[in-house]
Amino acid sequence: MSARVVCFGELLLRLSAPGREKLLQRPQLEVCVGGAEANVGVSLARFGHHVAMVSTVADNALGEAVAGELRRHGLDTAGVRKVPGRMGLYFLAPGAAQRPAEVLYDRAGSAFALAAADAYDWPGLLAGADWLHLSGVTPALGANTAAAALAAARAARAAGVKVSFDGNFRPSLWQAWNGDAPTILRGLMGQADVLFADHRDMGVVLGGQYPQAEALERVRAAAADAFAAFPHLRWMACTLRTPRNVDHHALAGVLVGRDGAVALAPALEVGPIVDRIGGGDAFAAGVLHGLIRGWAPERTIRFGLAAGCLKHAIPGDFSLASEAEVEALMGEGRFDVKR
Amino acid sequence: MSARVVCFGELLLRLSAPGREKLLQRPQLEVCVGGAEANVGVSLARFGHHVAMVSTVADNALGEAVAGELRRHGLDTAGVRKVPGRMGLYFLAPGAAQRPAEVLYDRAGSAFALAAADAYDWPGLLAGADWLHLSGVTPALGANTAAAALAAARAARAAGVKVSFDGNFRPSLWQAWNGDAPTILRGLMGQADVLFADHRDMGVVLGGQYPQAEALERVRAAAADAFAAFPHLRWMACTLRTPRNVDHHALAGVLVGRDGAVALAPALEVGPIVDRIGGGDAFAAGVLHGLIRGWAPERTIRFGLAAGCLKHAIPGDFSLASEAEVEALMGEGRFDVKR
Amino acid sequence: MSARVVCFGELLLRLSAPGREKLLQRPQLEVCVGGAEANVGVSLARFGHHVAMVSTVADNALGEAVAGELRRHGLDTAGVRKVPGRMGLYFLAPGAAQRPAEVLYDRAGSAFALAAADAYDWPGLLAGADWLHLSGVTPALGANTAAAALAAARAARAAGVKVSFDGNFRPSLWQAWNGDAPTILRGLMGQADVLFADHRDMGVVLGGQYPQAEALERVRAAAADAFAAFPHLRWMACTLRTPRNVDHHALAGVLVGRDGAVALAPALEVGPIVDRIGGGDAFAAGVLHGLIRGWAPERTIRFGLAAGCLKHAIPGDFSLASEAEVEALMGEGRFDVKR
Amino acid sequence: MSARVVCFGELLLRLSAPGREKLLQRPQLEVCVGGAEANVGVSLARFGHHVAMVSTVADNALGEAVAGELRRHGLDTAGVRKVPGRMGLYFLAPGAAQRPAEVLYDRAGSAFALAAADAYDWPGLLAGADWLHLSGVTPALGANTAAAALAAARAARAAGVKVSFDGNFRPSLWQAWNGDAPTILRGLMGQADVLFADHRDMGVVLGGQYPQAEALERVRAAAADAFAAFPHLRWMACTLRTPRNVDHHALAGVLVGRDGAVALAPALEVGPIVDRIGGGDAFAAGVLHGLIRGWAPERTIRFGLAAGCLKHAIPGDFSLASEAEVEALMGEGRFDVKR
Amino acid sequence: MSARVVCFGELLLRLSAPGREKLLQRPQLEVCVGGAEANVGVSLARFGHHVAMVSTVADNALGEAVAGELRRHGLDTAGVRKVPGRMGLYFLAPGAAQRPAEVLYDRAGSAFALAAADAYDWPGLLAGADWLHLSGVTPALGANTAAAALAAARAARAAGVKVSFDGNFRPSLWQAWNGDAPTILRGLMGQADVLFADHRDMGVVLGGQYPQAEALERVRAAAADAFAAFPHLRWMACTLRTPRNVDHHALAGVLVGRDGAVALAPALEVGPIVDRIGGGDAFAAGVLHGLIRGWAPERTIRFGLAAGCLKHAIPGDFSLASEAEVEALMGEGRFDVKR
Amino acid sequence: MSARVVCFGELLLRLSAPGREKLLQRPQLEVCVGGAEANVGVSLARFGHHVAMVSTVADNALGEAVAGELRRHGLDTAGVRKVPGRMGLYFLAPGAAQRPAEVLYDRAGSAFALAAADAYDWPGLLAGADWLHLSGVTPALGANTAAAALAAARAARAAGVKVSFDGNFRPSLWQAWNGDAPTILRGLMGQADVLFADHRDMGVVLGGQYPQAEALERVRAAAADAFAAFPHLRWMACTLRTPRNVDHHALAGVLVGRDGAVALAPALEVGPIVDRIGGGDAFAAGVLHGLIRGWAPERTIRFGLAAGCLKHAIPGDFSLASEAEVEALMGEGRFDVKR
Repeated sequence: MSARVVCFGELLLRLSAPGREKLLQRPQLEVCVGGAEANVGVSLARFGHHVAMVSTVADNALGEAVAGELRRHGLDTAGVRKVPGRMGLYFLAPGAAQRPAEVLYDRAGSAFALAAADAYDWPGLLAGADWLHLSGVTPALGANTAAAALAAARAARAAGVKVSFDGNFRPSLWQAWNGDAPTILRGLMGQADVLFADHRDMGVVLGGQYPQAEALERVRAAAADAFAAFPHLRWMACTLRTPRNVDHHALAGVLVGRDGAVALAPALEVGPIVDRIGGGDAFAAGVLHGLIRGWAPERTIRFGLAAGCLKHAIPGDFSLASEAEVEALMGEGRFDVKR
Repeated sequence: MSARVVCFGELLLRLSAPGREKLLQRPQLEVCVGGAEANVGVSLARFGHHVAMVSTVADNALGEAVAGELRRHGLDTAGVRKVPGRMGLYFLAPGAAQRPAEVLYDRAGSAFALAAADAYDWPGLLAGADWLHLSGVTPALGANTAAAALAAARAARAAGVKVSFDGNFRPSLWQAWNGDAPTILRGLMGQADVLFADHRDMGVVLGGQYPQAEALERVRAAAADAFAAFPHLRWMACTLRTPRNVDHHALAGVLVGRDGAVALAPALEVGPIVDRIGGGDAFAAGVLHGLIRGWAPERTIRFGLAAGCLKHAIPGDFSLASEAEVEALMGEGRFDVKR
Repeated sequence: MSARVVCFGELLLRLSAPGREKLLQRPQLEVCVGGAEANVGVSLARFGHHVAMVSTVADNALGEAVAGELRRHGLDTAGVRKVPGRMGLYFLAPGAAQRPAEVLYDRAGSAFALAAADAYDWPGLLAGADWLHLSGVTPALGANTAAAALAAARAARAAGVKVSFDGNFRPSLWQAWNGDAPTILRGLMGQADVLFADHRDMGVVLGGQYPQAEALERVRAAAADAFAAFPHLRWMACTLRTPRNVDHHALAGVLVGRDGAVALAPALEVGPIVDRIGGGDAFAAGVLHGLIRGWAPERTIRFGLAAGCLKHAIPGDFSLASEAEVEALMGEGRFDVKR
Repeated sequence: MSARVVCFGELLLRLSAPGREKLLQRPQLEVCVGGAEANVGVSLARFGHHVAMVSTVADNALGEAVAGELRRHGLDTAGVRKVPGRMGLYFLAPGAAQRPAEVLYDRAGSAFALAAADAYDWPGLLAGADWLHLSGVTPALGANTAAAALAAARAARAAGVKVSFDGNFRPSLWQAWNGDAPTILRGLMGQADVLFADHRDMGVVLGGQYPQAEALERVRAAAADAFAAFPHLRWMACTLRTPRNVDHHALAGVLVGRDGAVALAPALEVGPIVDRIGGGDAFAAGVLHGLIRGWAPERTIRFGLAAGCLKHAIPGDFSLASEAEVEALMGEGRFDVKR
Repeated sequence: MSARVVCFGELLLRLSAPGREKLLQRPQLEVCVGGAEANVGVSLARFGHHVAMVSTVADNALGEAVAGELRRHGLDTAGVRKVPGRMGLYFLAPGAAQRPAEVLYDRAGSAFALAAADAYDWPGLLAGADWLHLSGVTPALGANTAAAALAAARAARAAGVKVSFDGNFRPSLWQAWNGDAPTILRGLMGQADVLFADHRDMGVVLGGQYPQAEALERVRAAAADAFAAFPHLRWMACTLRTPRNVDHHALAGVLVGRDGAVALAPALEVGPIVDRIGGGDAFAAGVLHGLIRGWAPERTIRFGLAAGCLKHAIPGDFSLASEAEVEALMGEGRFDVKR
Repeated sequence: MSARVVCFGELLLRLSAPGREKLLQRPQLEVCVGGAEANVGVSLARFGHHVAMVSTVADNALGEAVAGELRRHGLDTAGVRKVPGRMGLYFLAPGAAQRPAEVLYDRAGSAFALAAADAYDWPGLLAGADWLHLSGVTPALGANTAAAALAAARAARAAGVKVSFDGNFRPSLWQAWNGDAPTILRGLMGQADVLFADHRDMGVVLGGQYPQAEALERVRAAAADAFAAFPHLRWMACTLRTPRNVDHHALAGVLVGRDGAVALAPALEVGPIVDRIGGGDAFAAGVLHGLIRGWAPERTIRFGLAAGCLKHAIPGDFSLASEAEVEALMGEGRFDVKR
């Protein structure tokens, strides 16, 4: 049972220092393609779903390369517009041991950020789709993209397409244009069937206070607020991440249903981490996969957590793990060579 | 006191993804030379023995490169035949954290696999030798190589050359040609003075059942069966491996004598692992070195275990550790820079 | 005016020495994807056509990577079957100056070569197509693929799909299975509307003798024989290549119509060559593009020649030049930086 | 006799495809630092002058790396301001054979372009300087930088600092903001003692027509117009470039004095070209070096031409040739290994 | 409050095996610049101080590259002499897991080692300086450099410039020329205000015995001896390093004042280590920074320890951490991505 | 008919800038093994001869790697002594276009240069040999190596082993120790059966004047002097090299017999050159091969020239061309891909 999923969001080129070097310590950059929504899309395609990307890229060799990379991983890029302009970039110094990784965004004024909200033909783009996936990065980029995201979400609801939304709250992006994050995000979350978010998101969006000592209690309380505020919402999920050092994190997963039932995937120790970027997106894709398959919440959240953990072992923004590889980790794990 | 050792087996090119990437994530492959028996041979040459390789390679640039690599590490390659055909290959995706490494064999129809059993002049090749080393990979490749391995073992015994045999049981290779693994392996083990094998091997070869809770007890029981079945056998050795994750294993070593005496090298924690491939071969070489030197079983197994562990810190299939480096690890270890 | 083109042939991984090194001079291989028919397909996709690949690859990470690379360049890979087996490989030592490049095939027993002739549903695969492109490499791989190629060509003709066929005569492949090249190739060429071939091909296929002093005359005579022998044939085209050294060739192009009219694209000096592999395929794609567009023969052959020359400046088997880039070279050429 | 030279202009990161690949053919970019004025400055520093850079970079790891690279080559970067913002970038696909190199600018909205004209304390920055070097790229970036360049030139003239100006006319940059190139450039050239420009520049700036058949005559006529229009001007110099293919150009040099005397450096054949970017800047630096040294025009232009040619053999934007290396090429050249 | 610091010592090129390979396992070496005193200087420059290097390098491309690399990181290299000769080199095999890193010195007969003691104009070089930093490597290189180091230290004291001295005792260097280490080092330490040394140094230099069970007690006793022996000494500092394996060390820091007060920075667990070389130098720079800033001993030693730990996460000999990055680690640490 | 050849000379590590960069433009060095005599030895081994190397290397990882590299190419390294000390190095900036390559020697004080003349047991080392190959680099390194080379040559003559000697005159090496080049070289050439030298060598060694306009006449006159001076000499050979630019040379070959007969191999145009180092050594090996085989002088010199030219197309110091590859170039050359 595979779904037709539409992902909408910016496509970015990531330029990162090789090895564990600082940026430009040697005159070379490794390149990969990323973007929160595309990351989810690539994972879902690996899990067997039909995934179509909707975005806007620069009409040059970089934009072409980005679209090609998505096609390579099986995404349909017919909905990726090419217009004159620049690609959003981000520079990454990977970090190591006690030295945290650093992301340097260079995405202002990108072709995606400048695209008008009405540049997308949502009824056409959503025709035949089962799901639309959005994230909080898109509305954070400016009024254009905020309007575009909301238009997409509303069109989906109107067309009976389920909506998943990943909070991905990035204060610096909102501040750059003084965007009214709470109002805009409330609008978007109000269309969502599935929300990837935790107590920090609900603090921002709903103004909730979550002083509980236990992380799980904070999430549970935030979920209660979310279900109260957003009538269409059926599921809220998040990870609980404990970084021990840069190369070693512990990661648990929580899935809360509208009925308040909590499915918890106990923490896995993840490390030595190869590439932490995209871990949350891989988790989201894993949870969506379970929901699409109609698995029980417990299996769904354990699959999502394993998918998220596995991403930390794969270079690049994309998780390239198959369903079988994720399931292998859900079992007892197999850590010797597979021949 | 160094020995003249002859190793017989297939030489392979390993093509692996760089860094911790998946295969062809970037369009580049790292190459090294390997093969279970050659790996043992290179280690033994590093320990000061005279090692001659007997094999068959393709008569092209790849076969030449493989033979050259063995010479580089001090092996005598006069016994490496060059014939028209293809080289056996294997592709390796190295794995990381919770994502296991994967080996993709592409060795069917290799020049070695197709070589007739009588292509090797064993009396000549074994002249002056003290030891012959074989492994269970060779007979698993087909009827030709199974016959060749048996011919080699018999010629060795006839000539008073000691025989060591590493089980290396690979079900998929046997299944590919419906080979009668138990019968063939029994024939080979029947010629062996030293056997690298554990309870799983004895289960396959002798049909033994080893339900003991403790791994050490299972090995002890399997060794008892082996000594009963194989009259020439004097020593059986194996590692006990506990993978904690892909980058961190624990490894112990066991050496059992014909008299039932068990020498145990307590587990070492190994990691972060650089390259796990060839760890077992380096262990075998270490144990053989101790037996050749006439060391006590305790020293022998501790040296073998240290040699095996050290391999995990060296890229490629070959262990390049010297006797002095292995002995340094047998002491308390020295983990700061040597200046 | 773009066409729907189906390409059928083997997909290969090329493993080449970096820089200008000999194979395995350093332990690294550069990887790209190739195959005569796929090369044509990628060029045609760059020129704006819809291209679908039909092939059989190994159902493993390598086969997946190969299909992904085609998708990256815009090809439809729904017709690429995945079955257990191995990928065809070829190793390339690039050559330089007076040292010729060398190709080492390792494609025997590939999943494609072993695929049964009836594994492909041609009516379905050709539905809606305008063109089918084949080459002489496919029938050279064995009886299975010879039969498959013929079935494809016949199905195309039956369905009104135009057929182009590139001779690509490789004696060593035919000899490996004692294939009856003349008979099989005659059968295939008999279905072709467009043939990429020269006097050497016609010597093999039709037994013609072409003692003319001028290359152009030899081609003209061979074309006359081809049009006489193959009633469906409308165009025959080939390059005339004069290697001055490994890094510098001269290349002319000839297109002969059924009416005997010859369009000649005068020789261009090509060099320093970056990658000569796929030059003939890029030429074929350029000529096909002109024929699809309905250009005059002179423009068509000049476009084809420029496309072929430009390939020599692009690393890898694929030509990534756009129509605009080819046309720029057809003019007076522009050899300073484009800003 | 060395001078104190101030260079003012944007500092750029160049991100280029490795080898002769197209952009992102493999997921890696080579990085170097460039910018027309910095290129001149690095050459002059190699020739023994004291060079101070004045610019504005992003206050992040990229800006720090750019400034560090200038210091590495001996420039004084105390005048390089660091402010929040982004670095100007350009992507380069290097080209080969008949495929021209392509530059993809991504410099809009850079920290330099957005810096206010009065951000620079020219009296302080020029204190003690002998020369100020500017180019036509800076005013082309927008009203801010046009005003800044003019302020710099005027401050220099007021302080008795000689001014050199390199036309470097880039239509696409001017068009992006509808800048009045002729008026602004006339203003800047009016302050110049030395102008690097040819008939195309004078056509743009002064509206001249130069229909002469010979390039040298066109330059001579354009120079006459320039000397007439710009009373401070003492020298005009340019190269005459004939690209034979992408890897092989012929390059001559012309230096015209206010008295109309023409010094011509006959064409050198340059190739195979390693990196054509910065060739004009290296030429300008070479001519400035001769003028600073007080050499005769013939020696000056031959030095300038040799410096420009040598740059084509050095990877990156910067020419790293010393005076001795340039002079070696001015002689008969020495093309065998120097031991 | 930043200081003007002069560092005197040899500049070395480090040539290291890539990845975790043994030397020349593949035919490639990574290069960086190092030297105990330069390492301290680069750290101090990152912390905002003005640092001038005094040294002697070879007057060739290697010496130029070394000086350029120091300038890149902000050091003043006017005091770096260039003379005919060779650069000191060291080869590094990085080590991994249980395999220790190995340093192979190739620095005998370097331009620095052969430079006469009176080659340096100390009054001029120290004019305006606040601190002079030396280490025990310099006197260990031979009589020339021993005399030069002593001359520098005395000139500093005479000029009221504070002296810091890092013991860095390397027996093999002293043995190579039968140098009288105790006498020479006593002479140098007698000029020092700050000493980086522990009980092993005091054993060598003062002949002290430190049989205390606790490392901290040994250091305290050694410090007492040092303060007794060296009247100018105000602070002694050292790290306490516990290597758990090659990739994971624990590191504590101790700072003892002339009054006997001990400031202890509790051990941090450091790993997975990226590059251990230069860890002690980064620690020294951190402590010097605190002393220059006038921080309390507790803050000073905690800053020094954090600086030393952070170095282990940065490739190369130099620590490139800023004050802010060090302080971030002094807090609770932040181990997730910084966006 | 293959010979047993002994080569005596220094083994060097070459450290070169990647691509066409200047030294340390990026922080990476490519490594290969070289040395004039080893280069000849590797070529001869490729041509099928048994080659034994006699040398002295450092007893460390670098010396081990050098010896291993020779074994890889089939040389016998039993005669390579390992002693404490350093390896001779040379740094190479490869050059391009009009920028000449530069060699930076760092070989003073190497283990080879310091080895005593009587360290080699020549009767044992030459037992069974047919040829001894020496070059003028060895005596240029100092009195020790000069004496060693002479001892080797005399021992060879005494044992009936033919001696070949390559002039390889390097003034800077002789000047470094004020060696009496003419006397020492006369002594060595007096033992030679075959001499690789031209009029410049004879000018140095015999004080001859060769004012002839034609290079060939100069060589002929120098050969006459050589045959007059050296009674054992039977053949003198040299190349005539005309560098057109750094990437393109023309190369002819001359072989003069004792009877004054001159065999001339007409000039071949060589380029674009990949690696010019070792071209003369490959030529010498080619000529020696012809003489060993007993070929006619014309065939011998044409083979030698083709071997020398082919080296320019192979990265590294060693020529890896086989006899068949050389002979292919002696024919009309084949410059298209070999499949």
